Formats: sequence, C-alpha cells, structure tokens
Amino acid sequence: MTGIGRLIGVGVGPGDPELLTLKAARIIAGADVVAYFAKAGNASHARRIVAAHLRADATELPLLYPVTVEMPRHGDAYRSCLGRFYEEAAAAVAAVLDAGRDVVVLSEGDPLFYGSYMHLHVRLSPRYPTEIVPGVTGMAGCWSTAGTPIAQGDDVLTILPGTLDEDDLGQRLARTDAAVIMKVGRNLPKIRRALAAAGCLDRAVYVERGTMTDCLTTPLAARSDAPAPYFSIVLVPGWRDRS
Amino acid sequence: MTGIGRLIGVGVGPGDPELLTLKAARIIAGADVVAYFAKAGNASHARRIVAAHLRADATELPLLYPVTVEMPRHGDAYRSCLGRFYEEAAAAVAAVLDAGRDVVVLSEGDPLFYGSYMHLHVRLSPRYPTEIVPGVTGMAGCWSTAGTPIAQGDDVLTILPGTLDEDDLGQRLARTDAAVIMKVGRNLPKIRRALAAAGCLDRAVYVERGTMTDCLTTPLAARSDAPAPYFSIVLVPGWRDRS
Repeated sequence: MTGIGRLIGVGVGPGDPELLTLKAARIIAGADVVAYFAKAGNASHARRIVAAHLRADATELPLLYPVTVEMPRHGDAYRSCLGRFYEEAAAAVAAVLDAGRDVVVLSEGDPLFYGSYMHLHVRLSPRYPTEIVPGVTGMAGCWSTAGTPIAQGDDVLTILPGTLDEDDLGQRLARTDAAVIMKVGRNLPKIRRALAAAGCLDRAVYVERGTMTDCLTTPLAARSDAPAPYFSIVLVPGWRDRS
Repeated sequence: MTGIGRLIGVGVGPGDPELLTLKAARIIAGADVVAYFAKAGNASHARRIVAAHLRADATELPLLYPVTVEMPRHGDAYRSCLGRFYEEAAAAVAAVLDAGRDVVVLSEGDPLFYGSYMHLHVRLSPRYPTEIVPGVTGMAGCWSTAGTPIAQGDDVLTILPGTLDEDDLGQRLARTDAAVIMKVGRNLPKIRRALAAAGCLDRAVYVERGTMTDCLTTPLAARSDAPAPYFSIVLVPGWRDRS
C-alpha cells in the first residue's frame, strides 16, 4: 500500500505555452495521471497548452462537461445537471487518489481564480492532501498583450462578470479606479452602455485571445457589437495621473 | 549601428523561484542588461528570485529608491522626490537602450499590476520597442498558499489598498463578493474594523510571504494587530455557496 494520492491543481497560464511556470512544467513532466475539464467533442485548451510536457505514458482523465445548450443558464435543471457532473468528476478523481496515485489537474490561468478546478478542490481537498501551483491569469495575459498598466498605487481594481445587469455594472464601474470585465460574449452591447454611463468608455480596451498567436487588441470604441469569443476581456485601465 | 534596444518588462512571480515562467527564465538567461528597483541598502527581492538564471557576465542596473523615511507619504516633497527618481531611472535605462542594448526589467509579481516597472513603461514605451512578460501575481501566490478559492462564476472581486479610509474600505467590502486587501502593514487594526463593519471578518484570511519558504496563513481573527511585513495580504474569499 502506498496510501492515498495527492491532488495537485496546476495553473497553466493564459495561453502561450511558454507562460507555464517552471514548477508547473516540472510537475506535469513527472505526472502519472493528468485530468482536465473540456466540453464534450472539444479538445481541452489547457491540455493543448501543456502538450509538449506530457509524458507519453501518462494516464489522461478528461472530465467532459455534459451538453447543456438547450437549458436556460440560470435554471434549476442546468444547475442540478452541472452539480451532478461535478460530483461524478470528483468521484472519478477520488477513485484514482484512493488507488494511491497522484492526480495533476490542469487549469487554464490560475486554479483558484474563477477556475473549474475549484469544483474538485472544494469536494476533495478536505479528504486528500492537496497542492496548488498558481498560474498567470488570463487577465494578466490580456493587459500584457495590450501593454496597458492596469492599476497602480492606491487604485481600487474591480473584476466584474459581464453577466451583471446593466445598472449594477454601470454603478460598479463608476465607483472603481480600474476594472476588468470578463464573460464578454454576447454581453458586449450591454457592457458598452454601462461603460458609457460610467464615463469610462473612451479608455476601455478590448482584448481577444491575449498571449496567443492570433491575439487582437483594440479600443473598445472601435470594436463592433458582434458576440465576442470565449477568450475575450474588456480592460478599464486605472492610474489616471501616471505620475 | 544596431539601432535602439528593446525594453522588456518581465514578471518574476510571487517569491518561489520555481514560479518564474519558462519565458521569463529564457529571457533572463539570455539578458545582456538586467535592471531592477530596490531600496538603497537592501538587496532586490526580484533579483534574488531570478539569481540562478542570470548570466555571469550580465550588466546589472540597480535602480535605487531614494531614502524617504522622514517625508510624509502623501506630501508634495515625497511625490516630487519620487517623481525625480523615476525620471532619472528612466533616463538611465534609456541611455542603455540608445546604445542598442536590450534592457530586461525585473518586476515582482506581474509587471503591469501595481508594479514599479510601470513607471519606466509609461516613460519609455512610447519611444522604444517594448515587450511585457506577465507573471504570477503576489495575490495568486497567497491564495494558493492558503488553498482558498478566491472567486467563482458571477462573483465580483475587488482589489483594495489597505490605505483607504475606514468607511470607504468598509462600504466597498460590503458591496463585493470577494476581496483582496493589499498594503496591510500598519493598517491592520483599521482593516479589521472595516471587515467587521462589512460582516466579513469571520471569513477573512491573513497570508504572509505566500509561496516563500517561511510563509504563514491564519484566519485574520487569530492574527494580532502588530504591523504586518511588506509581503502580507488579507483575502476575503467569495463563492459562498460552493455549489
């Protein structure tokens, strides 16, 4: 008996495979079992980032999201379907840990910052030894690609989901020095109106696929309202006086 | 003539030398000139993190902060002293760039997230080709050390400087799902009162020197009000329902 295995949540960074940390590269190169979330039918983005480091004989454990396109995003059926999926995913990982094997869970960006890994973490870390390897976040990849200082000194920086309602978004934008708006997708027209209401549309920057080979940066004012892809973000830089 | 050099702002991560990215390690290992900010008389923390990667024949350009301990933090004398220092630091880096040599500027955490590097960036990036290598932030190092999911789903996450006044801090804490409080230092008693007023003292976590060998994590409620060291942070985790 070798006892139970360790759960290791590893951040793989924003997209550029070279933005993996030395620690993440070492742990992945030594990993016996590697798990990752992906949509059924899609390749895992996190797996693609680390592909060059995976052992040829590593056991892969893809955790495939159920197809939920026909369910309303905030309905009970959607929530309970996802809840069941996370329970099953945690059980699949637990079975490997119980067999005494460590499981490395890949996580885009940073594991504890809006990551799917967290659904395993809260279910398993109370029962299994757990380690986290932090990663470069998607938002840091985006402001680096844009070359835009995001916050300095005594700035307040607010991370906002684009899913908030327009008034709430506008009021929060009006009260902060700097902001990052995630979950842009189909929310772009609403985000634009909220930024205008808060008086910060003129300095908002749109970034798509930050640090990836086909990345794109533009003032938001110059971007159409067409739906944004998954890897997109809106930045409202702070540090207005730049002294 | 080789033309002008490139300014390269490189994030070196939160403290653990293994949390350097592969890209940062490659660029530092090839760097001819390496610049970093430090307090006069102190070793540079960023330099210590990357020491194993520096070329033996690299030219080092330490940018030493003037001694300002006797000046009030928000006074005009302090601001103009620092302003002069950043101008001189930018001029020193520009002289090297003008000689056709690239300059790698080390930055703790991420270069464009509350980093000193930004003072060079705003002065030099309009005139010189510039590249940013994002890094793992100090706050990500802290929540990873604590093993604490910070935000999930539609959470609003607010980054707050502990220098805000107590009422402002309390109101902002009351309106957010999750928070990170930086610049803890001597502000701990005030931060504690603001957290209590906002009803989130019970879930606040204090982290000191996250990812470093002598790191420390404790519920804030169990931490004394004694001044906190430079590398300390208070986390207020979001994702209350953990579903």
